[in-house]
Amino acid sequence: MATHELIAKPDTVHWGFYDASLEPVMRIRSGDTLEVHTESGREEYLAELGTRASQNLRDIIEQVPQELGPHIMTGPVAVEGAQSGDVLEVRIHEVKTRYDWGYNAIRPMMGGLPEDFPYTRAVIVDLDLEAQTGDWGAGVKVPLRPYFGNFGVAPPPAVGRVGSYPPSAWGGNLDNKELISGSVAYFPIFNEGALFSVGDGHGCQGDGEACLTAIETGLSGTMEIIVRKDLQLENPRAETDTHYILMGFDPILDNAAKMALRETIKFLGELRGMSRDDAYTLCSLAVDLRITQIVNGVKGVHAMLPKSLFA
Amino acid sequence: MATHELIAKPDTVHWGFYDASLEPVMRIRSGDTLEVHTESGREEYLAELGTRASQNLRDIIEQVPQELGPHIMTGPVAVEGAQSGDVLEVRIHEVKTRYDWGYNAIRPMMGGLPEDFPYTRAVIVDLDLEAQTGDWGAGVKVPLRPYFGNFGVAPPPAVGRVGSYPPSAWGGNLDNKELISGSVAYFPIFNEGALFSVGDGHGCQGDGEACLTAIETGLSGTMEIIVRKDLQLENPRAETDTHYILMGFDPILDNAAKMALRETIKFLGELRGMSRDDAYTLCSLAVDLRITQIVNGVKGVHAMLPKSLFA
Repeated sequence: MATHELIAKPDTVHWGFYDASLEPVMRIRSGDTLEVHTESGREEYLAELGTRASQNLRDIIEQVPQELGPHIMTGPVAVEGAQSGDVLEVRIHEVKTRYDWGYNAIRPMMGGLPEDFPYTRAVIVDLDLEAQTGDWGAGVKVPLRPYFGNFGVAPPPAVGRVGSYPPSAWGGNLDNKELISGSVAYFPIFNEGALFSVGDGHGCQGDGEACLTAIETGLSGTMEIIVRKDLQLENPRAETDTHYILMGFDPILDNAAKMALRETIKFLGELRGMSRDDAYTLCSLAVDLRITQIVNGVKGVHAMLPKSLFA
Repeated sequence: MATHELIAKPDTVHWGFYDASLEPVMRIRSGDTLEVHTESGREEYLAELGTRASQNLRDIIEQVPQELGPHIMTGPVAVEGAQSGDVLEVRIHEVKTRYDWGYNAIRPMMGGLPEDFPYTRAVIVDLDLEAQTGDWGAGVKVPLRPYFGNFGVAPPPAVGRVGSYPPSAWGGNLDNKELISGSVAYFPIFNEGALFSVGDGHGCQGDGEACLTAIETGLSGTMEIIVRKDLQLENPRAETDTHYILMGFDPILDNAAKMALRETIKFLGELRGMSRDDAYTLCSLAVDLRITQIVNGVKGVHAMLPKSLFA
């Protein structure tokens, strides 16, 4: 199996959207490994950052049009043999920080408490890459736990060009902090080649992504990409070493929680042939509903189902 | 400091409500330790349980009127010197299972997915007290992690007799699975003596309490009860060895999340003098919003703030 490196630069990124009509920037085979790099940033930070901002990021900001959403997405990568109806398995072998800086922004009309914080407040966060901490001023250093906030496949062609902001069936802006090194994500495929893209590097984030953004920063990821013809999915799923993760998305958090529950009940039926009643109760006893994020228009709830229940 | 044992029996419980006008069943001093026992059960299970159901539970079911809610509450306990405006600190030294059985119930019009499960389905769950597991049929044993789902102080007198079902400022049906042995809960006090009650023993529960109930079972708790005159609270708070826990309650989960965030931002200001902007961002980077429960009419979100951030 081959390994392919994909640098984020003007001709390998799309900014702010997913679109099935994008030409792939790379073609790989199922089972190949992708070493992919992402950039995060905005024009407004470049003066303060000076040479800390990479030339690739500067070139992207200068040359690539931003449409619909804020995320600089590396890709899309076409995977040979992938067909609509298949599943793309993404084994995240490693996610690493690239730079010694990130940023965090509060913006008006957005975030978890838009009524309380109706203004912009953007800060550059210094990262200590050796200690793997972010210097959150106020005497507090936060431990880094890097992961990609936004990744997935191209949406169904009929959806057209869709903003990178709300998560959906094709993945996208999941902002699920569990998808770190060692986790596996599964996406339903809607297009030939799957058309996988990744961006929105997060140095760290709490469940909820309360203020709108995490520590937004450039990351490098090593991912094994596999086309699964033996699986069928309507929505993304994931797993860690210790948990299966089932997801719910909806503009209303109450509905996202219901979807996450329904996905978990369905999954328990597939995994163990468990009755719906038994699965519902098992969720009540042993599955944790966590708030993935409340800030992407479409909110997220993820259900954490411990693998140890079945040991 | 004295230790007082309080058994749950017909003259030491109230069933289904909180009420400031209830006569205390015991008086203790601030700093005293309460060894308190709770019973959980309903008439419909007694035939199947036979002698597994304690005589105290049978007496309660026969003699005590149930009003408004389902929880058999032991108490209220009056704490000398407690005044409205003070805070009651409850240090949970130990919570233990009492019996080899519990139950789980799905009921129509209730639970996280009332549309999908419009019927009653009640099961007795066998508990292995040595292994500390519950036998959830379907080949799955769930680890026990006992805690009291429902505890708190009497509500303001103007509230009158209020159901034990929705959580509120005085605590009540929090169903917060973090409040195990070693945790500390803080409640605002609204009445002379505080009038502390406890019930709704849970053998284990996932965040969300998806189907309506946990493993409902009798528990014994050892709690140090302290009146704090140096604190002021509008809503309950808690802490574990590793986290501060701030809470949000609302019939709409989105609003509960906002309340939990606002409580966390306020707490960070009190704890560290942190600016509101800094606190909001710190929530985004390092505080986890979890769904406490979606099944008590008033839903809950709790924010987990790691103490390690301030080490």
